[in-house]
Amino acid sequence: MADISLHKPYPAAEIEKWDFETEVAVIGFGAAGACAAIEAADAGAKVKLFERNSGSGGASGLSGGEIYLGGNGGTDVQQAAGFSDSTEDFAAYLKMAGGPCADDAKCDIYADNALDHFDWLKAQGVPYRGNFLSGKQIEPVDDSTLIWSGSEAAAPFCDNAKPAPRGHVIQHMGWGGGRPLMDILEKRARDLGVDVVADARALALIKDGERVVGVIVNIDNKPHFVKAEKGVVLATGGFVMNEDMRRKYCPETFKLSDPIGDQDDGTGINLGVGAGGEAIHMEQFFTTCPWTIPEPQANGVFVNVQGQRFINEDCYHGRVSRCAVDQPGGKVYLLLDSAHFSQALDLARTDIVGTGATWEEVEGELDMPTGTLSNTMAFYNKHASEGQDPLFGKREPILKPLDQGPFVALELNFETSYFSFFTLGGLKTSINGEVLDRVGEPIQGLFAAGRCTSGLPAWGHGYSSGMSLADCTFFGRQAGRKAAA
Amino acid sequence: MADISLHKPYPAAEIEKWDFETEVAVIGFGAAGACAAIEAADAGAKVKLFERNSGSGGASGLSGGEIYLGGNGGTDVQQAAGFSDSTEDFAAYLKMAGGPCADDAKCDIYADNALDHFDWLKAQGVPYRGNFLSGKQIEPVDDSTLIWSGSEAAAPFCDNAKPAPRGHVIQHMGWGGGRPLMDILEKRARDLGVDVVADARALALIKDGERVVGVIVNIDNKPHFVKAEKGVVLATGGFVMNEDMRRKYCPETFKLSDPIGDQDDGTGINLGVGAGGEAIHMEQFFTTCPWTIPEPQANGVFVNVQGQRFINEDCYHGRVSRCAVDQPGGKVYLLLDSAHFSQALDLARTDIVGTGATWEEVEGELDMPTGTLSNTMAFYNKHASEGQDPLFGKREPILKPLDQGPFVALELNFETSYFSFFTLGGLKTSINGEVLDRVGEPIQGLFAAGRCTSGLPAWGHGYSSGMSLADCTFFGRQAGRKAAA
Repeated sequence: MADISLHKPYPAAEIEKWDFETEVAVIGFGAAGACAAIEAADAGAKVKLFERNSGSGGASGLSGGEIYLGGNGGTDVQQAAGFSDSTEDFAAYLKMAGGPCADDAKCDIYADNALDHFDWLKAQGVPYRGNFLSGKQIEPVDDSTLIWSGSEAAAPFCDNAKPAPRGHVIQHMGWGGGRPLMDILEKRARDLGVDVVADARALALIKDGERVVGVIVNIDNKPHFVKAEKGVVLATGGFVMNEDMRRKYCPETFKLSDPIGDQDDGTGINLGVGAGGEAIHMEQFFTTCPWTIPEPQANGVFVNVQGQRFINEDCYHGRVSRCAVDQPGGKVYLLLDSAHFSQALDLARTDIVGTGATWEEVEGELDMPTGTLSNTMAFYNKHASEGQDPLFGKREPILKPLDQGPFVALELNFETSYFSFFTLGGLKTSINGEVLDRVGEPIQGLFAAGRCTSGLPAWGHGYSSGMSLADCTFFGRQAGRKAAA
Repeated sequence: MADISLHKPYPAAEIEKWDFETEVAVIGFGAAGACAAIEAADAGAKVKLFERNSGSGGASGLSGGEIYLGGNGGTDVQQAAGFSDSTEDFAAYLKMAGGPCADDAKCDIYADNALDHFDWLKAQGVPYRGNFLSGKQIEPVDDSTLIWSGSEAAAPFCDNAKPAPRGHVIQHMGWGGGRPLMDILEKRARDLGVDVVADARALALIKDGERVVGVIVNIDNKPHFVKAEKGVVLATGGFVMNEDMRRKYCPETFKLSDPIGDQDDGTGINLGVGAGGEAIHMEQFFTTCPWTIPEPQANGVFVNVQGQRFINEDCYHGRVSRCAVDQPGGKVYLLLDSAHFSQALDLARTDIVGTGATWEEVEGELDMPTGTLSNTMAFYNKHASEGQDPLFGKREPILKPLDQGPFVALELNFETSYFSFFTLGGLKTSINGEVLDRVGEPIQGLFAAGRCTSGLPAWGHGYSSGMSLADCTFFGRQAGRKAAA
């Protein structure tokens, strides 16, 4: 018997007996795997879905259940709230959000088809209340649908694409809409006849010549051989829970302490690369510290240890956080006045490290040289009171002078504050979910979606909430449909 | 006949007739390939070296011929100039210079052995005048040996490793010591019986089962099959000249316009990955704009488009340049006063975009809001006149107040100024130059060195001059010796 390895496909010729036979094998039961299974089954294929945990969910189940949607004039929810959203603006935003790592073809096809995708989600049974909740929300605290979930209305994004809110959240009271979203997708998959095999962890792909023809899964500590006539869809998530991979590919994350994910150990990436695929943008990661909660804190100003601002704080909290983590000195400060300060979320672990009746006093308490933070704030307040941020282009309504003492500085320490993070790099795939080899040719029989691929959320500095689930659900469907074809 | 591909080893079983037979085949005749060939031949192996150009050189031949050396108390040149340099300080600096991408084992073995390596270089015939040239030099304008070539004396490096100059330059009048260095290494290789085959470009590796047993090279537009009984050493350089690879792996370089290299098209990286190796830190690149020439300009202060300083300008010119390229707005400004301004190098393409009798006037000419650049300079000058840079820790002797009007601002525009750059990511190799697979096991018969690997210069923000040639020459030797074993 050949060795069974994540890194090298097992030769089909060595297999004496198949334990399972199917047409499409899906690996991983998060949103990407669920949507791939649904589409493949809907197209008439026999589908087996293997999940290493005892049930569905993955990182999607831990999420807010928010999906980034728009284009074609706008979803019914956007339109009802008075926002129009052209496909061009939507695509332009997605490309800016992908920065130097953007996959233009994925941005374009998604912008073209997101409205249909929204209809599809509703057709699967995902409920949406249909209303718009204004303000800076991380997730709605009630069961609202539409929120601003990115940097659409902030510079430089708003200068190149007409802003619209695009975060569409499942109707669900409070945070954590990812779990009910997964319940609905799971039910739909089962109703369509998808055979779910839980407690089954992928060990290796199986190749017959150049074609992937199956997968080996571990069940009850024994390898089981799965024949997949039409193909295998990898949907196993990123690698944030694999410290060795992070050390090798994404070492900057070791500044931070709070990986978020489920069993995101890079299994699908390793399987795909081992089968001839390639992984790109592996150094990219999302991070955020929930500094916009409670909402008045969103009016704050950030400075680095030099007392300098470094971004327009009206950007998405994750973009601000990601840029914060680039600053020298291991920490940044969130500055607030008495008109805007509220007790920060315990979860954020952001301590008050300076207070004062004037910004000069705060500066002194932070041991910053005279004329640093205090000048930054004098300059900021002078212009903010005129509705201007000449340095970074921060805008109303959260461009407020912070001039009502006493003042306070919260420390966001990269190591000790809550900076949740997950990885964005992964397999290079086509817009149809085919895993591509290093010259860009599809690997026969191998598909992938979600965070084991590099997709719409390709660049940490441009991430917006709902982009990863948009990518998982839409390109999961693409992969499932292509695999079943 | 099987397809011949950079991305997939050719099966030895398909080869009817070998065109060349040798023990060690070295691919690429830059410094890494030359040193690999010398060591392999010196160990008694039959060595053939294949070079795609008509002669030796590669990117090494275009370089300054500077090698980063120290440790074990210091080289004779360091000691003669009054610098001691412990192995611990040297290793600590190398690790800081590698930042999150540092390969600690490579840093340690190099720090331990650099003194011996210097003796070896001299034994090959590389001449050194043996003197120290002080000041900020990019390369010596005369034939001096030792220069400060990194950020050793600057914060935060100097706080964690005792500073010493470590850039050792071949005795050669003026810039461009890389060419005479290559001439000497070439002569040495030929004297040892290395058979050099020029105009021979690598097309594919050849594998027999899991072992690399040769290489296919293109000569006169025909594939030639080379049997290499002991192994193949890849020394083909980085991928800065391959736009497709840069787009995929190092997209940030598209901000810049001046790749430097020879035929650095990623050949060795593709060959190595195709044979089961892996490439790491592919997003990393070196860049520099020669802003320290003429030397008085080194006293300047950098600000970004917000008028903020962003680094202690006493760091290595390449570190300052790399951090500059991180700044928003596509450009930064180098500020000088009349006491320090000289006409900038034409090569740098840095135009004067603002002048004034006061910094306020310069600020106005740059269309910066009142109180930005002028406050930055007032703060800087106040502290510099007291020998302090409380924000970034810039130090004497180039910590000078810039208060002698008239004043000037030079624009370093990422797109139009001369920011030369080359890639740093590449194959993951052991300290012995073995190409490692994705679980860290050596690929039998395959070795690599230089910029087709990720080595000592792993992180763009920490690069120091001489680090790449140090890596090429030392780990080239390691690879050659291991291949011949």
